[in-house]
Amino acid sequence: MRIAVIGAGAMGALYGGYLSRKHDVLLVDVNRAQVDAINARGLTIHEPDGGMTLCRPRALLNTQGMAPADVVILFVKAMFSDSALESNRSLIGPDTVLMTLQNGSGHEETLLKYCDRAHVVLGTTQHNSAVLGLGEIRHGGSGKTCIGCLDGDSQRLAPIARAFTACGLETVCDDRVQRLIWDKLFTNVSASVLTGVLQVPLGFIAQNAHAWALCETLVREAVAVAAGEGLVFDAEEKIAQVRAVCEKSPGGVTSICADLRDGRRTEVDTISGSVVRASRRNGVPAPTHEAIVALVHAMEARTL
Amino acid sequence: MRIAVIGAGAMGALYGGYLSRKHDVLLVDVNRAQVDAINARGLTIHEPDGGMTLCRPRALLNTQGMAPADVVILFVKAMFSDSALESNRSLIGPDTVLMTLQNGSGHEETLLKYCDRAHVVLGTTQHNSAVLGLGEIRHGGSGKTCIGCLDGDSQRLAPIARAFTACGLETVCDDRVQRLIWDKLFTNVSASVLTGVLQVPLGFIAQNAHAWALCETLVREAVAVAAGEGLVFDAEEKIAQVRAVCEKSPGGVTSICADLRDGRRTEVDTISGSVVRASRRNGVPAPTHEAIVALVHAMEARTL
Repeated sequence: MRIAVIGAGAMGALYGGYLSRKHDVLLVDVNRAQVDAINARGLTIHEPDGGMTLCRPRALLNTQGMAPADVVILFVKAMFSDSALESNRSLIGPDTVLMTLQNGSGHEETLLKYCDRAHVVLGTTQHNSAVLGLGEIRHGGSGKTCIGCLDGDSQRLAPIARAFTACGLETVCDDRVQRLIWDKLFTNVSASVLTGVLQVPLGFIAQNAHAWALCETLVREAVAVAAGEGLVFDAEEKIAQVRAVCEKSPGGVTSICADLRDGRRTEVDTISGSVVRASRRNGVPAPTHEAIVALVHAMEARTL
Repeated sequence: MRIAVIGAGAMGALYGGYLSRKHDVLLVDVNRAQVDAINARGLTIHEPDGGMTLCRPRALLNTQGMAPADVVILFVKAMFSDSALESNRSLIGPDTVLMTLQNGSGHEETLLKYCDRAHVVLGTTQHNSAVLGLGEIRHGGSGKTCIGCLDGDSQRLAPIARAFTACGLETVCDDRVQRLIWDKLFTNVSASVLTGVLQVPLGFIAQNAHAWALCETLVREAVAVAAGEGLVFDAEEKIAQVRAVCEKSPGGVTSICADLRDGRRTEVDTISGSVVRASRRNGVPAPTHEAIVALVHAMEARTL
């Protein structure tokens, strides 16, 4: 299979590296130093068990004029999705499957500008990964990858799932992919974003009564908005899950907390922002998410 | 007139000092160093015009067993209102007028535990003042003091207004005192509290599009809650006034911003919190104020 991975950050490099074991993989990134390092020395993956995997995907900066790929996987930070797809339009032909495994809901809105509904694939991954240096990542943990189509019949993605699984990325097809995406979203749009606004570790959210009350409100609003999208979740169950995440990693520093601390732009628009967009689409109010998104953007401007 | 001022902070000392020019004033505080300084050297007021006023109110720590005053003015930080009134119950007899000029709405709830409706007086002041040291304050600006009763007929307070005015504190009676209190509240529950949460000067709120959108939402919610209390304001007019305040003092650091920066407890419960309580009472939703109050309390806990 000819696979292009757009974005050679922690997750893109992980998938690009693993998939290059059995497929023709292009790893596309705008960072020349990263591209050069991968082409010169390959990609080194430090595995959870202490071992190392060396992969040799082909890395490149520019794909203009290249032939379409069978599968394009988008793995850039979501605020760069549009420009990354625009720059790499050549890779997307009429038969190309355009896949995103990015965090947050609603990415199909962007993907649909570049292909038809039948070729959009959404998904979730339980893998996690961090950048260690140029051409070097730490594979923090493994798990299932779930992929699905916008309008059901996800079993037609079975060849892709088999191709991924053959490379060590266990992948299943699931028609409930939107549900899986939302299920993963609840923690991110409640406890995680609050750690950013408050600049505290995860444990604080469960320990402080005021932070926790706000966290519960955020989960309840998100569950109501999801219901407006036809995805019914039990609020109490989700609240208990979010609490468990906070209590399991009390010292955990989330990426949004680090982004705001270090003056970087955050992914809030694709995380909490996707709840706000769904809320506006389906008319279920999400005033607390609206306030949080505005606060995070104001904090971003403050530190720049 | 026998007047007791409870709280010898910046505003209590200003009123206690001025009123002592023509009346028998007791200035009550729990801070022994402040009480001792005022009794030893008097109270020095640095006036806006560069001049100085020396006043000699009687300061004291404990009023147990003392006779009731004609007027008791409560000027402590609102979270100490209840304990301050409880400690100074002796000063409040059946004929004592119990007055508050504290910021925020809803103080009558506390005052009514200590006297009947006919003896509660609410008000607003345009004076401002800051503590410079023991027995020393800076009088930052002057203006009108408006006082009124809970159930109209505020003209019966005319003798008190005259007594205040005679001392240099221009005071009028006004049946619309609740309206004046809310009118003053809009800036505090929107731009000011946001400067605290974001840790920015006032100008940022008008300059940053996200902060300003949130500020507008806070004003609109507060205007709706006020309407639920029977006090009708024009949201656009209030928004323009709040904007003007931000633009007039772009470098202004609010007291809530300083309190959160320095790890002190804030007055959020009597400012934004009074909007939340009114909202719960009258059923007009104020979700953004609820979120802001929770955030401020979480920030207080984080810094202690």
